[in-house]
Amino acid sequence: MIEKLRVAVIGAGYWGPNLARNFRSSPEWELAAVCDLDLDRARRLAEQGGGTRAESSLAAVLAADDIDAVAIATPATTHHRITTAALASGKHVLVEKPLADTVEHGADMVGRAAAGGLVLMADHTYCYTPAVLKMRELIEEGALGDILFIDSVRINLGLIQPDVDVFWDLAPHDLAIIDFLLPGGLRPLAVSAVGADPLRSGKACVGYLTLPLQNGAMAHVHVNWLSPTKVRQMIIGGTRRTLVWDDLNPQQRLSVYDRGVDLDIQSLDGVERSAATVSYRLGDTWSPALPETEALRSMVDEFAGAIRGRRSPRTDGRAGLRVLTILDAARRSLAEDGAATAPIADLALAGNS
Amino acid sequence: MIEKLRVAVIGAGYWGPNLARNFRSSPEWELAAVCDLDLDRARRLAEQGGGTRAESSLAAVLAADDIDAVAIATPATTHHRITTAALASGKHVLVEKPLADTVEHGADMVGRAAAGGLVLMADHTYCYTPAVLKMRELIEEGALGDILFIDSVRINLGLIQPDVDVFWDLAPHDLAIIDFLLPGGLRPLAVSAVGADPLRSGKACVGYLTLPLQNGAMAHVHVNWLSPTKVRQMIIGGTRRTLVWDDLNPQQRLSVYDRGVDLDIQSLDGVERSAATVSYRLGDTWSPALPETEALRSMVDEFAGAIRGRRSPRTDGRAGLRVLTILDAARRSLAEDGAATAPIADLALAGNS
Amino acid sequence: MIEKLRVAVIGAGYWGPNLARNFRSSPEWELAAVCDLDLDRARRLAEQGGGTRAESSLAAVLAADDIDAVAIATPATTHHRITTAALASGKHVLVEKPLADTVEHGADMVGRAAAGGLVLMADHTYCYTPAVLKMRELIEEGALGDILFIDSVRINLGLIQPDVDVFWDLAPHDLAIIDFLLPGGLRPLAVSAVGADPLRSGKACVGYLTLPLQNGAMAHVHVNWLSPTKVRQMIIGGTRRTLVWDDLNPQQRLSVYDRGVDLDIQSLDGVERSAATVSYRLGDTWSPALPETEALRSMVDEFAGAIRGRRSPRTDGRAGLRVLTILDAARRSLAEDGAATAPIADLALAGNS
Amino acid sequence: MIEKLRVAVIGAGYWGPNLARNFRSSPEWELAAVCDLDLDRARRLAEQGGGTRAESSLAAVLAADDIDAVAIATPATTHHRITTAALASGKHVLVEKPLADTVEHGADMVGRAAAGGLVLMADHTYCYTPAVLKMRELIEEGALGDILFIDSVRINLGLIQPDVDVFWDLAPHDLAIIDFLLPGGLRPLAVSAVGADPLRSGKACVGYLTLPLQNGAMAHVHVNWLSPTKVRQMIIGGTRRTLVWDDLNPQQRLSVYDRGVDLDIQSLDGVERSAATVSYRLGDTWSPALPETEALRSMVDEFAGAIRGRRSPRTDGRAGLRVLTILDAARRSLAEDGAATAPIADLALAGNS
Repeated sequence: MIEKLRVAVIGAGYWGPNLARNFRSSPEWELAAVCDLDLDRARRLAEQGGGTRAESSLAAVLAADDIDAVAIATPATTHHRITTAALASGKHVLVEKPLADTVEHGADMVGRAAAGGLVLMADHTYCYTPAVLKMRELIEEGALGDILFIDSVRINLGLIQPDVDVFWDLAPHDLAIIDFLLPGGLRPLAVSAVGADPLRSGKACVGYLTLPLQNGAMAHVHVNWLSPTKVRQMIIGGTRRTLVWDDLNPQQRLSVYDRGVDLDIQSLDGVERSAATVSYRLGDTWSPALPETEALRSMVDEFAGAIRGRRSPRTDGRAGLRVLTILDAARRSLAEDGAATAPIADLALAGNS
Repeated sequence: MIEKLRVAVIGAGYWGPNLARNFRSSPEWELAAVCDLDLDRARRLAEQGGGTRAESSLAAVLAADDIDAVAIATPATTHHRITTAALASGKHVLVEKPLADTVEHGADMVGRAAAGGLVLMADHTYCYTPAVLKMRELIEEGALGDILFIDSVRINLGLIQPDVDVFWDLAPHDLAIIDFLLPGGLRPLAVSAVGADPLRSGKACVGYLTLPLQNGAMAHVHVNWLSPTKVRQMIIGGTRRTLVWDDLNPQQRLSVYDRGVDLDIQSLDGVERSAATVSYRLGDTWSPALPETEALRSMVDEFAGAIRGRRSPRTDGRAGLRVLTILDAARRSLAEDGAATAPIADLALAGNS
Repeated sequence: MIEKLRVAVIGAGYWGPNLARNFRSSPEWELAAVCDLDLDRARRLAEQGGGTRAESSLAAVLAADDIDAVAIATPATTHHRITTAALASGKHVLVEKPLADTVEHGADMVGRAAAGGLVLMADHTYCYTPAVLKMRELIEEGALGDILFIDSVRINLGLIQPDVDVFWDLAPHDLAIIDFLLPGGLRPLAVSAVGADPLRSGKACVGYLTLPLQNGAMAHVHVNWLSPTKVRQMIIGGTRRTLVWDDLNPQQRLSVYDRGVDLDIQSLDGVERSAATVSYRLGDTWSPALPETEALRSMVDEFAGAIRGRRSPRTDGRAGLRVLTILDAARRSLAEDGAATAPIADLALAGNS
Repeated sequence: MIEKLRVAVIGAGYWGPNLARNFRSSPEWELAAVCDLDLDRARRLAEQGGGTRAESSLAAVLAADDIDAVAIATPATTHHRITTAALASGKHVLVEKPLADTVEHGADMVGRAAAGGLVLMADHTYCYTPAVLKMRELIEEGALGDILFIDSVRINLGLIQPDVDVFWDLAPHDLAIIDFLLPGGLRPLAVSAVGADPLRSGKACVGYLTLPLQNGAMAHVHVNWLSPTKVRQMIIGGTRRTLVWDDLNPQQRLSVYDRGVDLDIQSLDGVERSAATVSYRLGDTWSPALPETEALRSMVDEFAGAIRGRRSPRTDGRAGLRVLTILDAARRSLAEDGAATAPIADLALAGNS
């Protein structure tokens, strides 16, 4: 039997207990410590079993020889400071989304992890749900053909956040998932964001993101805190088939439609354009069965696999950085009435590993 | 008993027969003539009863003293020529959408009708469906409060048109409906349009329109020819209630949600902004019963009512012109990567009558 | 090119025009005559084209040498008289459902057709919808395995009929379809019917039919005139797969579930019973694409095919008779508080041809 | 502040922990003890807080002066013995469903509780869900008018139980709910049950229950372990309105339809029957908002309320007994091919308290 990896969870607030529970349930991991400035809170989480110790000093955790990795579940503004300290101590790092508060911080974290040969993983939990894993598998094996468009809707009567707008609250999910699905990650040619604040709350409550992609494709994200009905749906159109993910339909989350439009492309005057010949496929629909595994558990197992295999995890720091750069470009576009805005990032760093 | 109004249908192709059938079924109207360059086609339609005569000469129709109005169901490029001739002959005019091929032509038509004291009506058939009529009634009586956002989706595996893009094919429906619903009509502060042509068909097959409105509100339209599933849904969020129209759910087309977010607006430093106090309403949902009347029949009755009452019809030429100016601005925005574009129009003409 | 068969439609009321339209549109058929006691009504239908003549005398139609077949769309009480006269004149016969007003009449019709070597076909239109044809194909090719249960629901806010109860109004559809789907037809071991007449209308408005089948299987039909929502759904459970037909979901009428329960049957004490070993399959779901063909058109083509091929049609008189015997047994069971009742029929006649 | 009632949970297996958790969270209750033959199991549950003691001796629990009530979560065959002992010790009793293993046992329990002036409550948890509570409220206030029919469907790919058939596994939920909803409880004139065991598992896997009610109304229950799709739906038709409960649609669990059929009842020959006049209402649909309270918590609060108020709880022993007598009659009907069977019970005992 292989030896367990030992992890400390930093932050025992909202998300920390979920991480702790899944580290405990995984045979790959031992939850060695829980660290929180509020020692009582750390203790309550630590005491739930497994000999976990409670700490209020980050320095003590990072100094400990028996800890291989840390999982950071603290506010975004602290991610850079804690991550760089952990990497400096030789610990692998899992960071809750968003990766960092600024693109510069995120890029620095990615650079340091690469330099240190350590795993830096973004906690894009949604990517590890059975539905998204199956979607990635279908795209990888070519079931959809080339991607033509992605339309994602995530709307609900949502809690208006005091500090972030609807883009920062909801769109990271869509962006992380699209980044996970597209071979090579989500690398839009530009980002346009338009938002509305009709309640005069001081920040956008309704938002639309447009992301032109390579080869004429396009991704679009609709996020909304004011919808009375809850919708979580993504349509991914491909040249061969089209996939619809309806996350609120447990009886049929994924539907793969063998329907579409085929154009007979002919070379006219040296320019590739569609000729008159358009044909339509109206084939079967197929809904793959999905296992009932918990996403967070699959994610902590992937973290272990990356550390043991000395490889990048599926949602590595670069993926987190790509999401961050898009959110950052969206913020700038929003300030310019939706003007198409280039995502700026150290592309060498954000490149696929 | 009042005397029937006498109408000639111009164009016996795809839409003309629908108009003819409804003029025949209405007690307000007598279908006096059908006119088509293809006299055989005109005859086949005329012969279906009611003593209708067939004509191939537009001039003959317009010269006839016994004809009060014409309904034009010919290609958009002919609308201006036929309409101005008909108005010059003192005929009231109903024009199939779009009102005209250019904003200038449309504005000219509106101006001439106003100058001549004649009715110019846009054939926005969708506005006369029981669902849309009920929506307008609800908004008028204040059931929704102030409009915060409108999100319209009209996607389907659609016939790729040889001459128009997905905006000109599908969005006129959404724009005409929104124009009909908003008190004062749809008068966006700007228009942004982004589209994708991933099949390289030479025109956009996927499109998104963003329309910032007064008071921070926003309308958004998603049109798509490549979706394997058919969606025709509009969400209209208001300060008091939110309405969802699902046109493909005959058992519950309209749902009115008494749910929403309330902000306690307080004056801070003289600036109206939201204070910390946010509250949520989670009230009942209500789905009004709808009568089963045919939209086109309601429309021809409205045409008669406007002529007899010497008033503007509910979807007058100005409404058609407003839709046209938005489509025109969308075309220009599309060419500039979605830059926010001002709709240009003779606002005096497009103003509410 | 083959010669067209010539048919007369008897009865120009509600259903006759639908038959006439489809005979006219089929290249197999020429609509030679329309016959109705009300000659004006016959004329209006005949005049719609194709040189069809109008008749008010059945005798004249049956005496005509140029007529190969008749399609009877008259009240059920007249079916026996008209059919036997037509068969005696050597005409093939298509009869609207129900086949006859009594089992004896139906059996007599089946016997005479067989004796005369003529086609007697039951107008079970629903069996020729693309969905039901696909369901039959799936069952025939073994996609479902052995049938375990069939549950059919057909409920709606329905017109309360003056002369028939909800069983005779709605259940013939379900029974004809199940008869069509089951290899060898629907031959229940018994029939139990319970009904309710809570409005005191004098006949059942809510009804349940239970039909135990061979090998422990069971069919059940729920018909209801008082439901505010419309449901038309059939679940067919098999040992290999289970099929759900939702006729009101045009986007996914058929779903085939590769899910189910498997028992490892072991012989215990010489008695075949289930041992402890139960396993569950939770496989994919599949929704076959369906063509958009009109059922009535497919039915008149099948009528022609049976006549030309000197074979039984897919829904022959025996199928109509089986449905009739079940309705008859249901009537008797209903009178005895739902006691299990044997369907009585001349089984030699109702036997599969 | 009022003193807390003190309860012991008997049985720490599957259901006991849920009871324990809700007694702990309720301000009405103190969880004094957990009792299980397996003392370790009792300890693990007791140790979760609140100073609860663990016991393995039922006698010790019942002898304790500081315990007011017991909640029994042991196998059905033990309910009678434990309940009678608890009542003899002056404890109030809450019993998991089914109330007892036989009607005689159940009636004896009800009789002893009444004689001792103690509360005997059936753990019909589903009745305390927000949806069912709202349904009862609507029926009580007359929103539906007189009940015409109830159709309940509870089907799923279910675990085939080793010891019970699909009726005993699933139908108690439907019966308890219908009993809760009908004023005066569910008192069918007869019970008919038909089942199928097409897998030869030794017990019914598909079942239908028919329950004729007073005044021509009828209840019907469909339970099924072999359905690939999960359905939990109840339609309750009334003279004024009809209610549909779809428990798997969290966005609209309850829909109240103002639709229906109205008959003008006229006295004909002294017999009340429907005359020709039938009219239809096609009014609005309304979906009441529901609070998000946990059913089990509402139930333990009701238990406390009944004890303190010296009144019958909403789901008292008589309700449990009524459900038991129907299941018993269903068992006998099933053995006689669905013959209508009278429920036998000491009606004086099962009568409304």
